[in-house]
Parts: sequence; C-alpha cells; structure tokens
Amino acid sequence: MRSETIVAVSTPRGVGGVAVVRLSGPLAKELALRHLSVSTLLPRHSHYARFSVGNSFVDEVLAVWFPSPHSYSGEDMVEFSCHGSLFVQQAIVHALLDGGARLAEPGEFTLRAFLNGKLNLSQAEAVADLIDSATPAQHRLAVSQLRGGYAHKLEELRQRLLDLASLLELELDFSQEDVEFADRTLLRQTLAELDGEVSLLVGSFSLGNALKHGIPVAIVGRPNAGKSSLLNALLNDDRALVSDIPGTTRDTIEESLTLSGITFRFIDTAGLRHSDDVVESMGVERSRKAVAEADVVLYVHDATTPWQTPDLDLSAKQVIYVCNKIDLAPIASLPSPSVGLSTKTGIGLDKLKSSLVDLFSSRLSDHSVLLSNERHYQALLQVRKALEAASQGLAVDLPSDLVSVDLRDALYHLGTITGQVSSDDLLSNIFSRFCIGK
Amino acid sequence: MRSETIVAVSTPRGVGGVAVVRLSGPLAKELALRHLSVSTLLPRHSHYARFSVGNSFVDEVLAVWFPSPHSYSGEDMVEFSCHGSLFVQQAIVHALLDGGARLAEPGEFTLRAFLNGKLNLSQAEAVADLIDSATPAQHRLAVSQLRGGYAHKLEELRQRLLDLASLLELELDFSQEDVEFADRTLLRQTLAELDGEVSLLVGSFSLGNALKHGIPVAIVGRPNAGKSSLLNALLNDDRALVSDIPGTTRDTIEESLTLSGITFRFIDTAGLRHSDDVVESMGVERSRKAVAEADVVLYVHDATTPWQTPDLDLSAKQVIYVCNKIDLAPIASLPSPSVGLSTKTGIGLDKLKSSLVDLFSSRLSDHSVLLSNERHYQALLQVRKALEAASQGLAVDLPSDLVSVDLRDALYHLGTITGQVSSDDLLSNIFSRFCIGK
Repeated sequence: MRSETIVAVSTPRGVGGVAVVRLSGPLAKELALRHLSVSTLLPRHSHYARFSVGNSFVDEVLAVWFPSPHSYSGEDMVEFSCHGSLFVQQAIVHALLDGGARLAEPGEFTLRAFLNGKLNLSQAEAVADLIDSATPAQHRLAVSQLRGGYAHKLEELRQRLLDLASLLELELDFSQEDVEFADRTLLRQTLAELDGEVSLLVGSFSLGNALKHGIPVAIVGRPNAGKSSLLNALLNDDRALVSDIPGTTRDTIEESLTLSGITFRFIDTAGLRHSDDVVESMGVERSRKAVAEADVVLYVHDATTPWQTPDLDLSAKQVIYVCNKIDLAPIASLPSPSVGLSTKTGIGLDKLKSSLVDLFSSRLSDHSVLLSNERHYQALLQVRKALEAASQGLAVDLPSDLVSVDLRDALYHLGTITGQVSSDDLLSNIFSRFCIGK
Repeated sequence: MRSETIVAVSTPRGVGGVAVVRLSGPLAKELALRHLSVSTLLPRHSHYARFSVGNSFVDEVLAVWFPSPHSYSGEDMVEFSCHGSLFVQQAIVHALLDGGARLAEPGEFTLRAFLNGKLNLSQAEAVADLIDSATPAQHRLAVSQLRGGYAHKLEELRQRLLDLASLLELELDFSQEDVEFADRTLLRQTLAELDGEVSLLVGSFSLGNALKHGIPVAIVGRPNAGKSSLLNALLNDDRALVSDIPGTTRDTIEESLTLSGITFRFIDTAGLRHSDDVVESMGVERSRKAVAEADVVLYVHDATTPWQTPDLDLSAKQVIYVCNKIDLAPIASLPSPSVGLSTKTGIGLDKLKSSLVDLFSSRLSDHSVLLSNERHYQALLQVRKALEAASQGLAVDLPSDLVSVDLRDALYHLGTITGQVSSDDLLSNIFSRFCIGK
C-alpha cells in the first residue's frame, strides 16, 4: 500500500483564491515534472510554473517538492498551489490520477506520517482535533496532544513497565530455581507511579471532553421562572419560545455559546412541576435527564415568588443559583453561589457569564494536562484495571505468571494510545475521521 | 494605499486539511519573522516553522517568502500554509493584523498585481473568471484572456492608432500651413484593421457570453407534447411537474446541464395554445419571451398527433425539431434538423445531446478568440462607433480636429479594456467581484 502515490485537494471544498493539491509517494516528483513547465525541481523551492496536460494549459501554479523524509508524510511529496477554481482543482487531480497516482483516503497523508514514524498515533489523532478546533480551548487541547502531551510521559512509563515485565517473564523460564530478576519494590513503585499518572488523566477526562465538545449547562427551575428568557438573553437571540404561560417550553432546547474561549452548551428545559399534561410531564422527565448529564446547573428562581427548595438532587453538580426578575422585586436570599439578574433589562447577565467562566478557568489551571480523546480514555480505564489487578497480585504474592498476564494487559492498552500496538481496524477507524487531503 | 501591508485567508472558507494565509506589502517579511521560529527567510524556500503569538504556540506552518517584484502582487509577500482549522486561520490573520497589517479587500492582491504592472486589466479580470470556472469551456475562455488573448492584439492596434492620432493633432498646431503629418492612407488602413478586429470580437460575444453563463435553450411546443418530460429526461431527474393534463407547466423552469464541457441552460416553457385560463396565458407569453432570449430552440412535437407549423417566429434561431413519443407512433417527418426520441424509454436522447454539442463545437472552432466579458463588449461597441465616425469623417474630408475627437474617443474606450485608462470607480467595480484573498 505504501508504495502507491496518492493525491488529493487539501484545502477546504469550494471556490477560493488558492487551492492546494498534495501528491505523496515514490512517483510524486516524476509525475509533477511530467506536467510542469520546469525541467527540474529544487528541494523545498517554490517554483512558478505552468501546469499542462499534454498540449493543453491548465493553470499557473506554485509547485514545491519535499524530498523524503523531510515532508509531512515522510515520503517524497509535491504540493501545488493553483487557482481555487473547481475546474482547475479537478483537472490537476485527474491529470495526476491518469499518471498512476490514486485518490487519497481521508487522513491518508497523516496515516503515512504515522507509519513512517513522523508522528505517534496520539499525535496523529491530535491533527484531526486541531483541524476541527474552532475555539481557543479546543485549540489548546489539540496542540498539547500534538506536541506530545501525556503521550510522552505514558510512553516513558510504559518502557519502564515493559523492562520489568520482561524480567518477570524471564523468571518463568527459571521457575524451578526460585530466582527473582524483577525487583519487586521497583515494580510496585512503577505500578504506583503509572497508576497515579493514569488516574490523573482519567480524572481530567470529564473536563477535557467538555471543553472539546462544549460544557453542558442545564437551565432548570420552576415554571415561569424565566428559563427560556435567560437562554435568549445569553444568546442575545429569540431562540426559545417565551410566554407568560407556565409550561411554555416542553422540548429541551440546546444552543452553544463561547465565553472567553470556552464553549458552553446551554440546555433550556421544561419547568419543574407536577402536571397532568402528558407532554409537559415528558418534558419534566427530560429536565431531570438534562440535569443528570450536565456539568453545571443554572437554577433559575423568580424573585417575585417565595423561594422553594429545588425538587431535584443537585448535590453532585456545580450549581449557580440565578435570581431572575430583580427589576420587579428585591433580590431573594438564595444558596451560594448566586447571581441576581433581569433577563428583561440585561442587568447581571455579565456577572453570570463571568461566574460560569471562573468555574472552569480555575479548574483549567489545576490541570497541566487534559485528556479529551474518548479512545484514550477507554484505553486508560483498561490500563487502570490491569494495573490494579497486578498491584493486588503482588500484594498477595501471586505467582509471577499471573501477575505477568495483568502487566501484559496494561502494556497492550498503553500501546494502543501511542500506536506501538495497532491493527488495521484501529487505524482505519481513527483515520476515517479525518478530512480528505490531510 | 499601496504602502499598507495586507493579509487574508486565500483558500476557500471552511475547514480542511490545509489553509493558506497571504501577506503582501512592505512589512510582510518583518511581520512573518516576528511570529515564526526561524531566524531568517530564504527567498522562495518553503520553511517549516512554528507560528507563535508571544509565548503561545498557534500552529506548525510552512512559510514561503517571495521577495518583490517576483511575487503574485509584485510586492514582498509571505505565504503561510497552516492547518485548515477555523481557529488557526483566524489566529494567524489576527496576529498579523495586530502587527500592523490590515485585512485585504476582495481582489486586492490582484489589484496590486495590476498596479505593479504584473498583469493588464483584462488579465486581472480573467483571474476572477478563472477562479469561477467550473467547466472546460469556461476555463478555456478565462485562460485565453489570462494569457493575453485579444488584449495584446488590441493594445498593439491602439498603439498604432495613438501614433497616428498624435500626428493628426500635431497638424492642428500648424493649421495655418496646410501640412499633413498623418499619412491618410495609413490612417484609413489602421482604422479598417482595427474595425475588423473589433467587429470580430463584438460578433463573438454572444457565443462567448453564452459559454460563460450557459447557452440558453428554450424547450417549446404544443401542450402535452412532452416538454417537461424532455427536461426531466435530459437532467435524469424529476425536476419539472409532469402530468397528462395539457397545461401542467405554467412557470418557466430553468436548469443547467453540462454536455462535453459546454453548459446549457434548458428553459422548460408552457405549451403554446390559446387559453382562457389567465395564468396559463401568462405562461404562454413567457414562452415567447424565452424563445426570444434563447440561442437554441428545441421544438417538441408529439408523434401521436398531426404535425402543425409552429405558431412562433423561429427564423432567427437555431432550432432542433424533436419528435417525441416515438415508442407510441411512427416518427413524423419534421423540418430539418430533427431528432426522434422517446422521453419514456430514453431512445434518441443521446442523439439530441450530441446534436446540441455539435451546434457549438463547430461554432467554437470558427472563432480563435471569444469575447466573454460584458464590460469589454460595451467598451468595444463604443470603440466601433467612434471608429466608424472617424472613417466617415476622413471619407468626407472633415477637418482634422473633428476626426481627432473621434479617434480620442476610440483610444479612450480601448484603453479601458487593458487598463491604460482607469479610474478608481472602474477599478473598485472590477475588483469587488473577486473573492477575498486573491
């Protein structure tokens, strides 16, 4: 497969001033020269040339040859900058296909970079996250992973564990002789250190994942407290239907808003009350579900009504109590932290926004590294399970061969993160998420 | 204005593997070095570098410096290839804006290329056409104009006319002395040659314009002949409402189809008959209008009914007579050229398509150069008018100063095509059609 030459348009689909066509593989230079009006390509030099197919002129392009291994994919590559016309993009790609290249699969340039050792698997995955990043927080997560992040640390610990596991397995060959090659104290230390690192990462996943996909914030409260008005005020838009009639909102409504670089997904819910209306009751059920899935709950209280303790279990949640309608009534004394505001006049909205951001900027500074990749999270849960089994085995002096099985298990799952262990299925699963041309 | 440094994303909007940010102007190199992890930029060398803002890493990029005048705009330029993430694209542009660049207007890089003499105005306009080109015919038109096309020829004739006009005006200074600096025979020859060239171009406009925007093809015929079925069959789609009831189509329906690289705009019309239905009558009126504006008319006849001479003036049109429903009845003897087909079985459709293409591929080979730019067409009409006035003036021995006025008029309008004559209004009008970043 790696001996094939691949080609794709790497810039976003559509028409623009400039488009970039990438060509990677052993034929890259030869195919490029066949169509360009220059007789030679200097390494990494941006050549201005005419691109033709036979006698027919296609476009004036800039062409750069990146000799292997100093290219993105690690192979010989040529990049063409052409005019961003649909016809020109297609004509260049078709000419190169006719010359023996084939169309690149999604992410195939990055896959080759991984296979050629330019990136580890975790870094390759970060490339897709980087491309998808639209907010500073998402960008920071992707960059940290791209630059090594926790993968280097895990890789170093994996190497130490691998050495110890090998010594442990060596003992099995001498099982009659009761020797101990693997220093049990060092082994326990390494396991503890690895477990600490893994637990830290696993613990950071909920925040990392929330930053990547947006932090779910449920807006709840009694009917007519002004939940939909709060959503509209936050978005500065008439997104949700608003009326004076309690029970106006039935479906949950979700909208995203980025504050200080952090994306929040606000979920407006039905007011919490017992209702005989079947549809409204289903809405209330959804509200409870939204609370269960939220990272933050905005509990909205109507200042013109007496305070009632929420009919909800909020103990495990970060809650901000919002006292709405303070333009109509004095601010009520609510549980802390609370914010008084009026969705009508806009008073207090900025305070609420900064309270939300503060909740996370402090948590962000607690974590030097955040795990945001679901696949890594699942692998690390397996690693932790195996490490705990191995530790327990050591504690009760289980035979080495049993402890060995757990260590192998931990090593295997660690290896899937950085790509020491990979299968075709795993790779095709990861790289199919990519866009074509990367 | 030209001393400002401008920046824009030049690749299509959206997310992709790669995006290109262009920076042009005196600060280009200095601004780039401020953010890149390399200490120097070699001319036209593709540097791999980290792009940072202060201490904060943004992306790994490829950066190429094009020293003036060997760049697209003719100024110092730096092009950055970054990951095609929205955040990264914005972050790089914002960093360069903060450093003193400003956002480029649509087409401003090309405008600077024109102002720096890299392109004439006609070529600059061709860049926008090239970017918009989606079919081989549109591409061919744009490329021909980009590579000089008729502009060079016009420019050469303009130069000769300018010399003669100057001599003619010189005579005015010696009007008492009855001298003749401008050779009247040569002047008449040049006027005739220029008029020939201009008339050829003006004559090619209807075809050039049709190729650029799609050739209008009106589908007409009596009610229930199968006009809408023919449109659907050509498009291979259920675009138009079809029924057995005569008078089903009222609005004209327009859809484009590209055949052998030529785009046709098919216009399905209401069936031609007298009707008491007001809406249907309005539809019939539109059919007549569609015929008037079409380059080609497909006159559809129902083979199961007797042939009737069309109640339409088709004398000035290219007509293809289509005998439909030949699966139900023997093919009728229609005026030539005709095609028998069945929209139901698909028989004869390919024949119709190739007849359409043949109509234009033969006309295309008649013209070595095609005029497709509306602005140039209008200017050339003015040129022709002025040339004819000047020729008539010479023929009846009008005083030189009167002939001179007509020559100046011709020179002025010729100059607007290639840009020897340009105003801020004209330029802003032309370049506002461009996309940002080109």
